[in-house]
Amino acid sequence: MTTLSFAVLGAGRIGQIHARNVAANGRVRLTGVYDVDAGAAQKLAAACGAQVIGLDAAFDADAVVICTPTDTHADFIERAAKAGKAVFCEKPVDLSEARVRACLEVVKAAGTKLMVGFNRRFDPSFNALKTRILSGEIGSVELLTILSRDPAPPPVSYIARSGGLFRDMMIHDLDMARFLLGEEPVEVFAAASALVDPAIGAAGDVDTAAVTLKTASGKLCQISNSRRATYGYDQRIEVHGSKGLLRAGNMTQTTVESATASGFTTDPALPFFLERYAAAYRAELDAFIDALVDGKPITPDGSDGLKSLILADAATESAQTSKPVRVSL
Amino acid sequence: MTTLSFAVLGAGRIGQIHARNVAANGRVRLTGVYDVDAGAAQKLAAACGAQVIGLDAAFDADAVVICTPTDTHADFIERAAKAGKAVFCEKPVDLSEARVRACLEVVKAAGTKLMVGFNRRFDPSFNALKTRILSGEIGSVELLTILSRDPAPPPVSYIARSGGLFRDMMIHDLDMARFLLGEEPVEVFAAASALVDPAIGAAGDVDTAAVTLKTASGKLCQISNSRRATYGYDQRIEVHGSKGLLRAGNMTQTTVESATASGFTTDPALPFFLERYAAAYRAELDAFIDALVDGKPITPDGSDGLKSLILADAATESAQTSKPVRVSL
Amino acid sequence: MTTLSFAVLGAGRIGQIHARNVAANGRVRLTGVYDVDAGAAQKLAAACGAQVIGLDAAFDADAVVICTPTDTHADFIERAAKAGKAVFCEKPVDLSEARVRACLEVVKAAGTKLMVGFNRRFDPSFNALKTRILSGEIGSVELLTILSRDPAPPPVSYIARSGGLFRDMMIHDLDMARFLLGEEPVEVFAAASALVDPAIGAAGDVDTAAVTLKTASGKLCQISNSRRATYGYDQRIEVHGSKGLLRAGNMTQTTVESATASGFTTDPALPFFLERYAAAYRAELDAFIDALVDGKPITPDGSDGLKSLILADAATESAQTSKPVRVSL
Amino acid sequence: MTTLSFAVLGAGRIGQIHARNVAANGRVRLTGVYDVDAGAAQKLAAACGAQVIGLDAAFDADAVVICTPTDTHADFIERAAKAGKAVFCEKPVDLSEARVRACLEVVKAAGTKLMVGFNRRFDPSFNALKTRILSGEIGSVELLTILSRDPAPPPVSYIARSGGLFRDMMIHDLDMARFLLGEEPVEVFAAASALVDPAIGAAGDVDTAAVTLKTASGKLCQISNSRRATYGYDQRIEVHGSKGLLRAGNMTQTTVESATASGFTTDPALPFFLERYAAAYRAELDAFIDALVDGKPITPDGSDGLKSLILADAATESAQTSKPVRVSL
Repeated sequence: MTTLSFAVLGAGRIGQIHARNVAANGRVRLTGVYDVDAGAAQKLAAACGAQVIGLDAAFDADAVVICTPTDTHADFIERAAKAGKAVFCEKPVDLSEARVRACLEVVKAAGTKLMVGFNRRFDPSFNALKTRILSGEIGSVELLTILSRDPAPPPVSYIARSGGLFRDMMIHDLDMARFLLGEEPVEVFAAASALVDPAIGAAGDVDTAAVTLKTASGKLCQISNSRRATYGYDQRIEVHGSKGLLRAGNMTQTTVESATASGFTTDPALPFFLERYAAAYRAELDAFIDALVDGKPITPDGSDGLKSLILADAATESAQTSKPVRVSL
Repeated sequence: MTTLSFAVLGAGRIGQIHARNVAANGRVRLTGVYDVDAGAAQKLAAACGAQVIGLDAAFDADAVVICTPTDTHADFIERAAKAGKAVFCEKPVDLSEARVRACLEVVKAAGTKLMVGFNRRFDPSFNALKTRILSGEIGSVELLTILSRDPAPPPVSYIARSGGLFRDMMIHDLDMARFLLGEEPVEVFAAASALVDPAIGAAGDVDTAAVTLKTASGKLCQISNSRRATYGYDQRIEVHGSKGLLRAGNMTQTTVESATASGFTTDPALPFFLERYAAAYRAELDAFIDALVDGKPITPDGSDGLKSLILADAATESAQTSKPVRVSL
Repeated sequence: MTTLSFAVLGAGRIGQIHARNVAANGRVRLTGVYDVDAGAAQKLAAACGAQVIGLDAAFDADAVVICTPTDTHADFIERAAKAGKAVFCEKPVDLSEARVRACLEVVKAAGTKLMVGFNRRFDPSFNALKTRILSGEIGSVELLTILSRDPAPPPVSYIARSGGLFRDMMIHDLDMARFLLGEEPVEVFAAASALVDPAIGAAGDVDTAAVTLKTASGKLCQISNSRRATYGYDQRIEVHGSKGLLRAGNMTQTTVESATASGFTTDPALPFFLERYAAAYRAELDAFIDALVDGKPITPDGSDGLKSLILADAATESAQTSKPVRVSL
Repeated sequence: MTTLSFAVLGAGRIGQIHARNVAANGRVRLTGVYDVDAGAAQKLAAACGAQVIGLDAAFDADAVVICTPTDTHADFIERAAKAGKAVFCEKPVDLSEARVRACLEVVKAAGTKLMVGFNRRFDPSFNALKTRILSGEIGSVELLTILSRDPAPPPVSYIARSGGLFRDMMIHDLDMARFLLGEEPVEVFAAASALVDPAIGAAGDVDTAAVTLKTASGKLCQISNSRRATYGYDQRIEVHGSKGLLRAGNMTQTTVESATASGFTTDPALPFFLERYAAAYRAELDAFIDALVDGKPITPDGSDGLKSLILADAATESAQTSKPVRVSL
């Protein structure tokens, strides 16, 4: 077996994660890093012992890892598909459902592989929830609670082009809900506010949100999001089933606990996704490589990206209209 | 100061709690216990070192503790009010908003005191949440999460006359939401299912529910209820504020933890409300006595009973229509 | 069955606990409270709805609860025994092994019952350790760890007449070691220092101590004591057995946890023994009453008081000589 | 700066850890792996993208990582020192104090660097204990508790040549005690038994041990060891100071917790040192490289290896004689 070659497009925060993981993964080879910002590409390439490559050269690799801005994702996916290359693309495929559908058609026609970066499915704890649910340990899932809070809001400039909280942030939780419910939601209700920063509200977005999903058989899911958490990146899930409950919580830097007159204190949660999901990103890449090597279907794929976007669109509409929105996935 | 005399109406499960607490409270005197079931009254009276009394005699006491079936509450409250007596009444005042309003008018006209039994406000941990929110410790409350699960569903015969899950069970959580949000909800959305027992669904009720509340300023609250929890009575609250998070959790019988190849295991949660809220019931009685002694207003009072019922009615309607319901408290 | 009458001798801190528990216990009757300080006796009697009695009258009750200063214990036990009365006596019976032995002879000769106040055996969590060890859940006990710290040292004036840390404070842990090891220690080694307060060292005592016990079959126990703990009354036990570990920990006032940039913080431990062992004192009294009612032997009895004193004497000697001391219980 | 070259001697369990970490560390270069078992060397070299080298070639590298059997350590250290090479050596330097002293003289004469592999000092949680103690957060350290248990005993054949539990296993805890007490022990007392496996006792060793250390100023330390823990590798430390307590605990594979009628259950502890100390081994290598690059003294060095051995020897003697042993470090 010859080692698969990988090109990374985009040398930003998430591109850096993936490039380093590709470089450190013994099963694949990082052929190069591309970015419109040549300096950023150069810096990342050097850190990974790889070279800077042009956009055309990137599509010569066996697999392309797309970490560029959202509005380039669909075009790059299509270009790679037409070149017969496998693609790992950061979420979302696009902010427009129609554009996503068109892109997935191209991929389907090309018969190539496309994985979408819902990294949380590969978090060891969240992944264990799924495995243990499937084992029957808690019987039938009845009610899912997802608590997800960022440490601080992004700049309003980012908010403006993000597609809004539901498509930018909650889309991860919506994918997780689908992953763990084992049944597609049919109804979405969202209540949301701009409580963290009035500028977010002025930009037409929200920063605090509560969503309810219901499936055809009546399973329920509650998701809450906030763009603020003073105690770190808050990422928790709890699954209530007919035979018991499973939950997974935050991670801390150390296990140290202090005791004083103020009480017993442990570390805050890990600061943000880079730290919290470090193992998840590695496992995600491994799953992608596994699928390339063994020829099996990829999970999560483009259709998962599409379905989460449909849910995010529905939540956005629900928050704006104060009415539940029916969806058909 | 002469010791205040208390009569307890109703010798059922909750009447037993209150009668024993009155008997053990050094500041008041239990004059007697009344129940339509003379044997039950006799048994409870004996256990408390008190006597069985007739219904008329009960209203001779300084204060009447009403623990009889729901459909008698409003009548007994009115009778006590007209006799100039203070009343502690278990929730709800009545299942009909109109009947509650009429009853509260009678109490208002009489100028007597009425406390409604939202015991959870007096749970040491939940009460500490309130105190610490008021201290400003977590800044402005933004998002409240209430998880509340009974260990097992009541008999379907009880369900049928209970007013349904929202009026019977979630009404406690709705009161807690008002208590902790510090602002009245203006919108209620409910999604609910009968997942625990099909017979509950056949009786027209639900056993699993997810409710979202929103206040005028945009604060959000998510409540989840289930009639089933294999691990005990699950009663948890989490308050997310601009400066941090406060949460309060379940209680266990002991602090014992075991460690084996299966992992680290602590006790399940306390079995049900009698155990979990034992301290809350005592503190609730103390608060009632305090108000009688110092002449200050009672909290929670009849209007709190009314407002929680209005929220429960709204949740019931929302679950049936799949539409959010506006409320004005 | 006629209700047993109880007299309480001593209206200090511990006498108040027992008097209130006797008064609140439905199975016995508090006939009166005695104290050399008539005012203290009067105040406690009033709080319990009982009367002040003289010393002679106290020994007319069916049972005597001795909570007076240590140097009166043995005399009062003997007087009660000779009067055919049951005795509950706070630890220790006496600070002199010889005096304890003489006293127990008198009790033996009288054939009366004597319970010694090792309250911790009745703590619900520590008691559950014992029950679960006996159930075989963790196999054979191999290594016991007892961590026990007072929140702050007593006045040096108290230290001077206390018998020293091992007889005054660690005696509880030594009794607990015997209770949980299920086998008598044969060797005691103690290392100790005065680190908390030099005045304690100047008074000839220590405030920080580490003791090792070894049984004939080789089971080990480590005990640590400190007269200082800024975070409350620290009372923890961990039992390591061939099949697993059992541990029991501190209790807190509430279950509230806060999360901020400083981390996740729970309450400090309950402040001191009155709060921590409130349930234990009630259960202890119940066990004493049970034994009086059913005629069965009492546990812990005078011999338990004697054996713990012998271990405390051995620890004292070991700390002074820096040599392990052999004991034969 | 030219990249430093490293050679790894020994391709066993611990050699594999170090070789992989060297290979993955961007600041150094793995020149080769040596082992008397050529197959083992080949396999490890291949996994690390390095080559197999002979013993002579190993000493051509800038630094030598010694992971061979204990009886070769001192010879290899001396050979490297004489060749002017830096050495990282797994503990212990040797089981004989005299041999260690002689070896350290050679290193001293050569003026080369020697780091000894007390990996636990680099565990993020235990290291944080040290940092926070030094910050003054808990005032003066008074009492240290170290609980350390292996999941299962090694083969008796290993026991026989291990130097015994104190030199083989507890030496890590003795080093940790020195690290955290901030003051050298002057007295060692050990009580120990063979409770896990009679064959260990027959081989002249123990498998369960309790050690007490005392420093000149009276600080105390209790260490307990067992060769058995059904719930994983148990590694916990608690530091009691004048102003509070700091503790660090076990790590688990995931944060998942289940709740059923049996209670709330989390994962067992990580299985053994490879998993538990993975981050520690990486940090240890980084510290070694830091010292090579910046020319500063190495910690822990050969004298730390010597002092821990002296404490282990003292504990061994104490356990055999049942007497405390004085030491002068």
